[in-house]
Amino acid sequence: MAASGHGISLGRLAHQFKLQLRGDPQHQIRGVATLTSAGRDDLAFMANPLYRSQLKDTKAGVVVLSADNAEHFGGNVLIADDAYLAWAKLAAQFDRRPTISGGVHPSAVVDASAQIDDTAAIGAGVVVGERAVIGANVQIGAGSFIGADCHLGANSRLEPRVVLQSNVKLGQRVIVHPGAVIGADGFGLAFDGAAGQWIKVPQLGGVSIGDDSEVGANTTIDRGALEDTIIGCDVRLDNQIQIAHNVVVGDHTAMAGCSAVAGSARIGKYCMIAGGVGILGHLELCDRVTVTAMSLVTRSINKPGTYSSGTPLQDNAQWRRNAVRIRQLDDLARRVRRLEHE
Amino acid sequence: MAASGHGISLGRLAHQFKLQLRGDPQHQIRGVATLTSAGRDDLAFMANPLYRSQLKDTKAGVVVLSADNAEHFGGNVLIADDAYLAWAKLAAQFDRRPTISGGVHPSAVVDASAQIDDTAAIGAGVVVGERAVIGANVQIGAGSFIGADCHLGANSRLEPRVVLQSNVKLGQRVIVHPGAVIGADGFGLAFDGAAGQWIKVPQLGGVSIGDDSEVGANTTIDRGALEDTIIGCDVRLDNQIQIAHNVVVGDHTAMAGCSAVAGSARIGKYCMIAGGVGILGHLELCDRVTVTAMSLVTRSINKPGTYSSGTPLQDNAQWRRNAVRIRQLDDLARRVRRLEHE
Amino acid sequence: MAASGHGISLGRLAHQFKLQLRGDPQHQIRGVATLTSAGRDDLAFMANPLYRSQLKDTKAGVVVLSADNAEHFGGNVLIADDAYLAWAKLAAQFDRRPTISGGVHPSAVVDASAQIDDTAAIGAGVVVGERAVIGANVQIGAGSFIGADCHLGANSRLEPRVVLQSNVKLGQRVIVHPGAVIGADGFGLAFDGAAGQWIKVPQLGGVSIGDDSEVGANTTIDRGALEDTIIGCDVRLDNQIQIAHNVVVGDHTAMAGCSAVAGSARIGKYCMIAGGVGILGHLELCDRVTVTAMSLVTRSINKPGTYSSGTPLQDNAQWRRNAVRIRQLDDLARRVRRLEHE
Repeated sequence: MAASGHGISLGRLAHQFKLQLRGDPQHQIRGVATLTSAGRDDLAFMANPLYRSQLKDTKAGVVVLSADNAEHFGGNVLIADDAYLAWAKLAAQFDRRPTISGGVHPSAVVDASAQIDDTAAIGAGVVVGERAVIGANVQIGAGSFIGADCHLGANSRLEPRVVLQSNVKLGQRVIVHPGAVIGADGFGLAFDGAAGQWIKVPQLGGVSIGDDSEVGANTTIDRGALEDTIIGCDVRLDNQIQIAHNVVVGDHTAMAGCSAVAGSARIGKYCMIAGGVGILGHLELCDRVTVTAMSLVTRSINKPGTYSSGTPLQDNAQWRRNAVRIRQLDDLARRVRRLEHE
Repeated sequence: MAASGHGISLGRLAHQFKLQLRGDPQHQIRGVATLTSAGRDDLAFMANPLYRSQLKDTKAGVVVLSADNAEHFGGNVLIADDAYLAWAKLAAQFDRRPTISGGVHPSAVVDASAQIDDTAAIGAGVVVGERAVIGANVQIGAGSFIGADCHLGANSRLEPRVVLQSNVKLGQRVIVHPGAVIGADGFGLAFDGAAGQWIKVPQLGGVSIGDDSEVGANTTIDRGALEDTIIGCDVRLDNQIQIAHNVVVGDHTAMAGCSAVAGSARIGKYCMIAGGVGILGHLELCDRVTVTAMSLVTRSINKPGTYSSGTPLQDNAQWRRNAVRIRQLDDLARRVRRLEHE
Repeated sequence: MAASGHGISLGRLAHQFKLQLRGDPQHQIRGVATLTSAGRDDLAFMANPLYRSQLKDTKAGVVVLSADNAEHFGGNVLIADDAYLAWAKLAAQFDRRPTISGGVHPSAVVDASAQIDDTAAIGAGVVVGERAVIGANVQIGAGSFIGADCHLGANSRLEPRVVLQSNVKLGQRVIVHPGAVIGADGFGLAFDGAAGQWIKVPQLGGVSIGDDSEVGANTTIDRGALEDTIIGCDVRLDNQIQIAHNVVVGDHTAMAGCSAVAGSARIGKYCMIAGGVGILGHLELCDRVTVTAMSLVTRSINKPGTYSSGTPLQDNAQWRRNAVRIRQLDDLARRVRRLEHE
């Protein structure tokens, strides 16, 4: 990334983020880059010692390193206990992606009963429904839809083409990525046996999302059937996640892409759900549960730890030979028992 | 949910839905709620005896119960053979979510050749293409795109930001949730070995969806390659489902979130496909097939019943020990056979 | 599909696509259809001998066939080494789906600093950001969002409601289907142990997509953390695929619906990734790797071939009996070893 914009001195960065500086406090940083692409105006970082060899050739103006790694580098260093964490905070200073300019774009359609803070920015083609409340410094990307009775807390940011159906409450500093749909009807059906058809169960609840949470692109979070679907604070949802009606996700839980949670499941705090995981309905996961990729959670978990299902990747020919044996596994186990009793 | 709007008397509800009323026929109901949050103006229900203890404390104006459960409650009761089904029908009377006001929003862009019924409501920023036909009382949410030659049957409802590409036909009372894309190109590719590259196979068919079907948020249903992809009547598709080109889904089949059906598969009537299920291309599933969550259907099924694949969730350490054995399973089976023959 | 538009003679089609014609070179073709629905103005094809019986009843004006299959048909034939490939090329001549009319729709919102080629067509409600560059003959469907610093190469086509966040570069002839989101933030988080919360890692890279690639409906491709996420040339991505930050996908690779690739994974050229596959982060797959449906790739693959994981579909009762044994598999293997040593 080419450096751009006005600089910040290393001395100021060290002071602001409480890091130890080894080098020139006057040196100006204007951007961020990888070790290999950084120039003298750039901040870079290295957390994994595997990449230590890149240190000797980097042209970075400063590198964020742990004290251990800093010994292997002769240039300017910001020393941090956790280099990746320090990097996350530092790099945010150089995020110069465009923001929406303030005010309501003339092409937006805002209901007269909506309350929009003067400092909020409403993009082109946005629709804001009845009684919606848009807080201070909120940014709403082009083409987003904010339904009736939605509340957006201060400093929240919706990227383009987000849909919040009616009665969705976002806390402060919530980020929602493009294509996310929050508050669509849950999948509630009752089967009418006499008529031989499904009857839709009205979905009358809403969605509540706490402060500092993030919702990935094309992720869907359904409204509750009667009470709200609840996403806590500092919950991090990646792309294409499906959260069904009346699910509760605890604070600080992170879920990776394409995972899905069925109706009324309750997930604890500080859980880590990997990509493609499925969690069945009405289950409870306690705090600090980790589930590995593409596992299916079929029972409640009341003990912190790491859980998995699935089978290892194999060469297809080998897999075919073994897979057919899975169908015979119960029989095989019985035969072994028989052998043991002979 | 706070009660709101004008009330309906218990007597009238009992009469309209052919339920037995035990209690005051003059009592007015204005909303719906859970047993624990309901007030005296609210209708509540209980189907699962597990929650019977909540009956004694509820302040609900009336509760929908089976005759069995009704014995455990002293207040007003609407007695139903299937309390959940009765609830679904009753609660729909109290669904007061906003509807789009009638007519064509001035910001909508409607082709001169489109036919829009006078009773239809077209939201802000909607685009309607050539020769599209929009039936009576159809509601099209803000920012939806209705391509050329699409037909929307009477009383259908599109939520905001739905895309119907060209040549998509919806029956009556079809509901499509936000972000759904119906009629995008199927994934048709021919490999040109001489050139070492893919050639796109034109996708020239359409999509046909029958009466009373529902399509979830961010679900995708591809157009057929030559003939139509066909979704029957009363088919219920949850969020983030992928239906490939030329799939046929039979009437009354329900599919939960994140399931996917590959090209030209045919699914029967009254099937229940759980979340995250995959169905390979060109297979046939007969009527009344149930597939459990995250199973992969690799062969046609010609017998009604329940089918599964996958492995149970385990503690990760246990899972690692067992998973490595799956790779040795064929070998293990051969060794057992050898032991038996010794 | 009803034939429509002006015709093309069989002689001209044979000449243009270097196929052998057996039949009347003057016969005019106006559309394409299946063998069973084709009329005398239509082109049809048959590649799979399984459908040979349909040849005797077809009313198609011409059928594309291999030399072998041509012997079983008495009508006009275009003979091709690869009938499906020839069909793909021929049928594109008859793809008469609507295109967006040229110029910028009056409802589009285009930043003054954007450069839009005179031959490009920008649909209703499209938003084009600062410094975006739109090449010759590019078509942008209604309601799409093109963020700052995006470049769209000549003849690329975006269907309605596509989002390209800032700094997304598309090559020439790239097709993006509705609802796709390219360039949303990657899922970058650092855990701040002292504060007990997540810190967002700024995602400052972009996305680069090569010539002739295709991105399916509601697919998401995240921007890189620092450097770009890279999709090669002639890469074919189906619907609802998730590509995380800094992934590299090699030229000519095809991925079917709902597959997902975690951060920084590198996939080679000419790979075939089936539906629902998961690929963990930081892995490398060499060229010409095939992965079967719903497999999870947990390790790098350095040898071309076909790879799988998962278990076969079973009747649920049988599956339950066998699944419980998977949890005992390590124990079973140890018992067999013990028996062998007795």
